[in-house]
Amino acid sequence: MAKIAIIGLGLIGGSLGLALKAAKLPNLEIVGCDRDNEALAKARKLGATDKTTWNLREAVEDAAMVIISTPIVTTREVLEAIRDDLPPNCVVTDTGSTKAAVMTWARELLPREISFVGGHPMAGKEAASIDAAEATLFKDKPYCLIPSPDASEAAVQAVNGLINSIGGKALFLDAEEHDQFAAAISHLPIVMSTALFTLARSSLAWQDLSKLASSGFRDMTRLASGDPTMNHDISLTNRGAIIHWLDRYMEELSRYRDLLQEGKEGSLFELFTKAQLDRDAYINRTERHDEGPLPEIPPLNDQLASMLVGERLVQRMRDIGKLISGETPREPPDRKNNGGHRP
Amino acid sequence: MAKIAIIGLGLIGGSLGLALKAAKLPNLEIVGCDRDNEALAKARKLGATDKTTWNLREAVEDAAMVIISTPIVTTREVLEAIRDDLPPNCVVTDTGSTKAAVMTWARELLPREISFVGGHPMAGKEAASIDAAEATLFKDKPYCLIPSPDASEAAVQAVNGLINSIGGKALFLDAEEHDQFAAAISHLPIVMSTALFTLARSSLAWQDLSKLASSGFRDMTRLASGDPTMNHDISLTNRGAIIHWLDRYMEELSRYRDLLQEGKEGSLFELFTKAQLDRDAYINRTERHDEGPLPEIPPLNDQLASMLVGERLVQRMRDIGKLISGETPREPPDRKNNGGHRP
Repeated sequence: MAKIAIIGLGLIGGSLGLALKAAKLPNLEIVGCDRDNEALAKARKLGATDKTTWNLREAVEDAAMVIISTPIVTTREVLEAIRDDLPPNCVVTDTGSTKAAVMTWARELLPREISFVGGHPMAGKEAASIDAAEATLFKDKPYCLIPSPDASEAAVQAVNGLINSIGGKALFLDAEEHDQFAAAISHLPIVMSTALFTLARSSLAWQDLSKLASSGFRDMTRLASGDPTMNHDISLTNRGAIIHWLDRYMEELSRYRDLLQEGKEGSLFELFTKAQLDRDAYINRTERHDEGPLPEIPPLNDQLASMLVGERLVQRMRDIGKLISGETPREPPDRKNNGGHRP
Repeated sequence: MAKIAIIGLGLIGGSLGLALKAAKLPNLEIVGCDRDNEALAKARKLGATDKTTWNLREAVEDAAMVIISTPIVTTREVLEAIRDDLPPNCVVTDTGSTKAAVMTWARELLPREISFVGGHPMAGKEAASIDAAEATLFKDKPYCLIPSPDASEAAVQAVNGLINSIGGKALFLDAEEHDQFAAAISHLPIVMSTALFTLARSSLAWQDLSKLASSGFRDMTRLASGDPTMNHDISLTNRGAIIHWLDRYMEELSRYRDLLQEGKEGSLFELFTKAQLDRDAYINRTERHDEGPLPEIPPLNDQLASMLVGERLVQRMRDIGKLISGETPREPPDRKNNGGHRP
């Protein structure tokens, strides 16, 4: 019987339990550990665990693998609390959203014979509690793997196997790469989303704004409903990379601001068109390959892109020319998609 | 028999046709008009119209109401093209995302006896074509109404009735208010989304970033897939308000940047917590009232908020204090939701 201990039964810990149970691996015992009795009771009720305990020592005793799925800052406390009780050759992994700090703590705190393999499933939702746990949360989602330099090959393969068995797509990275990339596509978006909601909410016009707001605003502020503890811990442990991407993002916004200010509508149209073409290509490629490994994504053929942009631009400029010159065509518009519209 | 002409059979025009047909109003004829033969054929096939025509004059002949659902810039051309053919007492409305420019054009171009009532349904999706049209697109969504100063009471009530019959929630605004509010909750998010996608896409690390990107990045860049023509026309006709909100948004982002730079993690935690509490309250109120009129949204009781924030903050600061002091508690974490996690 192989025992896996999951420490921290929130959305991720609970979903890991459910996904492992759904994988029906033979001879596997899943022990869940959380200080919160309610989370333990829910884990049992959901069937996310075979056994639960409040006691960390009991949880890790004889465990072949320990998965720490607490907030990042708490992971350090857990590593300190369990280090003396880990069985030899135990594999330890975590699920935190930043990796450099956790890798350092593991190197400092864990005994040499324990292999630490950092993990970060790129899956989640606003709700942080086990109530939102799902067995399919990791299915077809990237799952980052960051082995510590002295982790054994067997340990790395064990965590890789865990990812495969829950349907995730393992991506090997080093901690610094991971934190830079995650800052761009995950941590910056959290700050963007929180800043947009906070700005709108603190406006004197909020009562009116909130009445007008629709799906666009709702989507763009979704990440603001994320767990503040997680968002805080991310900020604490990935400060440099987030500042880097925030600076680049503010530069990018300034570019749009300048184009608006200078009335460079043609350039804005090019930007919007290029973004649409590239994002559609990205989404289509991602969705088409959802069943297999993630594809290499070649850049959109630039000649093709500028041809497409150019064609639309010429047409658009012609329309605007008419508008500005006051010319009155006695004919309906001749563009496709001419009901295009979004709030 | 009352005739409604829909000019521009894209997502919005097509959805209006479908929604009106689904409302089964007696003695109503819906005529669709578009320059694009494919859109006309699709409108017929979807049953969004009773009749279609390529000819604007034929479309508006004897119409009781004309709905212009073309891109904003094209609306001016359409107003010019139809003004001499509109029957007396015809009500004209539009569906554009900005209102000040359209209201000015209508005042300049339409005969005095024609009532213009600007409209803006706060509903949409990325796809701009009639292929994405849905009869329920407007259900429970805000629909802004901006009557021109000399529109007749009957005309205003006619457009209000149209909105009711397709399940929308009419919101009366003046054009400048509308454009300011829409800039904050709709146009700024379009720029934010486009800028994020463009920044990530132009990064040398894009191949890696795109492999790591998950639902958060996908949601935050959804608006970048919007119709470039619409986005361009919004930028052209609401420049001042968008610049205003972009400036305020960049100030807000700078605040986060400074807190990160100065290591003010406590203040960041407060920001994240306040945003989560306020957004959850906003979403809950919105969803709870989805069946009725939009509620007045009182600000979250500030004392309550700071109490909640304060409690969590104290606990969090205690954890971080332990982390920094290197204190090693021999106990598991005692916070709830301690598996909170998102990519």
